[in-house]
Amino acid sequence: MNHRATPHDFTSQRDTITPYEFRQAVRSAQFRGPTAGYCGDFAQANLAIVPVAYAHDFLRFCQSNPKACPLLGVGEPGQWHVPALGREVDIRTDVPGYNVYRDGKLDAQVDNLAEFWQSDFVVFAIGCSFSFEDMLAKAGIPLRHVEEGRNVPMYRTNIANQRAGRFGGELVVSMRPMKGADAIRAVQITSRFPGVHGAPIHIGDPSALGIADLSKPDFGDAVTIRDGELPVYWACGVTPQTALMGAKLPLAIGHRPGYMLMTDITNASLAVF
Amino acid sequence: MNHRATPHDFTSQRDTITPYEFRQAVRSAQFRGPTAGYCGDFAQANLAIVPVAYAHDFLRFCQSNPKACPLLGVGEPGQWHVPALGREVDIRTDVPGYNVYRDGKLDAQVDNLAEFWQSDFVVFAIGCSFSFEDMLAKAGIPLRHVEEGRNVPMYRTNIANQRAGRFGGELVVSMRPMKGADAIRAVQITSRFPGVHGAPIHIGDPSALGIADLSKPDFGDAVTIRDGELPVYWACGVTPQTALMGAKLPLAIGHRPGYMLMTDITNASLAVF
Repeated sequence: MNHRATPHDFTSQRDTITPYEFRQAVRSAQFRGPTAGYCGDFAQANLAIVPVAYAHDFLRFCQSNPKACPLLGVGEPGQWHVPALGREVDIRTDVPGYNVYRDGKLDAQVDNLAEFWQSDFVVFAIGCSFSFEDMLAKAGIPLRHVEEGRNVPMYRTNIANQRAGRFGGELVVSMRPMKGADAIRAVQITSRFPGVHGAPIHIGDPSALGIADLSKPDFGDAVTIRDGELPVYWACGVTPQTALMGAKLPLAIGHRPGYMLMTDITNASLAVF
Repeated sequence: MNHRATPHDFTSQRDTITPYEFRQAVRSAQFRGPTAGYCGDFAQANLAIVPVAYAHDFLRFCQSNPKACPLLGVGEPGQWHVPALGREVDIRTDVPGYNVYRDGKLDAQVDNLAEFWQSDFVVFAIGCSFSFEDMLAKAGIPLRHVEEGRNVPMYRTNIANQRAGRFGGELVVSMRPMKGADAIRAVQITSRFPGVHGAPIHIGDPSALGIADLSKPDFGDAVTIRDGELPVYWACGVTPQTALMGAKLPLAIGHRPGYMLMTDITNASLAVF
C-alpha cells in the first residue's frame, strides 16, 4: 500500500476545490496524502473512533480537556455519517489515511475502514490547528515550520489531563516561535477560535511545561528559534491520540497524522466573537 | 502647597463613593492625592489641555497613535464641561493635581485652574491603564508593582509616534512582568478595551523596543522580574504627556501623574466585545 501515491494532482485546485469535492476525491482514491494547505477556508478534523462501551468516557475526556480536544462533531453510535461535519460524509472512506490501534499499539495503516467498521463504533471529530494557522498566515504572521518545510514541533508536557475512565495522560503541545508583537496578535486571533484549540496555553520558558529541550520535540520536527523570539505553545490534537493509545482499548481508530478529515465547517463560522 | 494633605480620608469609601461624589470631594479640596484604587469600576482619565490653535494637530496626534492616546472625550473649545466624561464635570476643579507647562517645561503644579483657564482651551481626556489593571486584578493576575507598592515602571522606546504638526516623539510603554499563561490571559482581557490602551504592544525582549535595561525605567519604579516571567509592555499615557512637552507650546496643561480625572464611564462599557 503506497500512501504517497497521488493518482491525480490536486495542487492547482487546493483553493478552488470544495470540501465535498475533496472528500469525493479521497473516497475514490484519487487523493492520497497529507491534507495541509487544501480548502484553506474550511476546518479539518482529527479523527478518533472508539467502541460505544468507551464512548461516554472519551466524550467526558474531551469535554474536560477542551483546549486539547475541542469537539467539532460526535456521531451517533454505529453511524459513519456525521451530518454536523459535512454533506454525505462517510467516515469509513473520506479520510485519506487511518491508524488502527489494538491494545494501544499501532496495528495497521489503512486507506479505508471497509474491513474494520463495527456497528458499535462512535466517531469523534476534533478541531485541528490547520484552521488557526490559516488565520495566522492571513494576518501576516510567519509560521516557522511552514517556512522551513517541516512538521510543527510537538512536545509532551508534565501537565496532567483531566482523567475520564481509562483516558488520561499528559497534555501535548505544539510550538511556534514568534516575535513578541506577533505572539500578541496570535493570542488575539486564536482566542476567537476555541473550536480549534483557541488561545495558546503558554508563552516562553519551556521548563514551566516540563519540556527539557525545545530542539528535541517528541513529535514532528525541530524548528529554528531566532534571537528575540518567544516560543508560543498551543494545546495539540495529538493529546487525544496519545490518550487513546494510553487507554489500551482492544480496538480504536484514528486518522493518520496529517491526513485529516476535510469538513464543510468554515473556519470563519467557528469564531466566537 | 502640600498635595499630600488629605483633609478627609476617603480610603474606607474607595469602592462605595460614586465618581460624581469623588469629583465633588476633589472640587471642594476634601480629596487630594493619587487616585489609584478609587471607584474601581470607573475609568480614570489622563488630561491634556492645549490652546485651540494646536488642538487640531493634537487631536490628529491622538487619532494617529490610538494605542498610546485612546481618547475618552474631547471638549468644545473654551468649555470646561465635557459631558461625555461625566455629570457636571468641571475640568478646572475636578482633577486633584495639575501640571502647567510653558514652552515645554513644567512651570507649576496647582490644585485648580482658576488662574490659568483660557477661553481658547480645548480639553482632551485619554484612557488610563488603571482601568485594565482593575480588570487584570479581578481576573486573578498579580501585578508586581502593586505587590511591591511601587509605581509601574515606564520606559521610553525607540518607536517613533506618528507625527502631527508639532506633536511627535517616541512611544512610552509601561511594563508588567508575568508568567506566560498570565500574559496570554492579559492579552485577551486588555484586547477587549482599546479605549484604555488595549492589548500589549510587545512581550519579551526589551531590546526590540530599544530598552537597554529594564532595571532602569525612565519613569516610575523598577520592579522584580522573576525567573520564567516575561516582561509585557503596554502603550502608556505618558506618551501624550511627553509629546505635549516636546511640542514646546507656550502654554499647555496636563494632570499631575497619578492624579487622574475620575469619569462616570464604567470600565465595563468600554469593552468592544
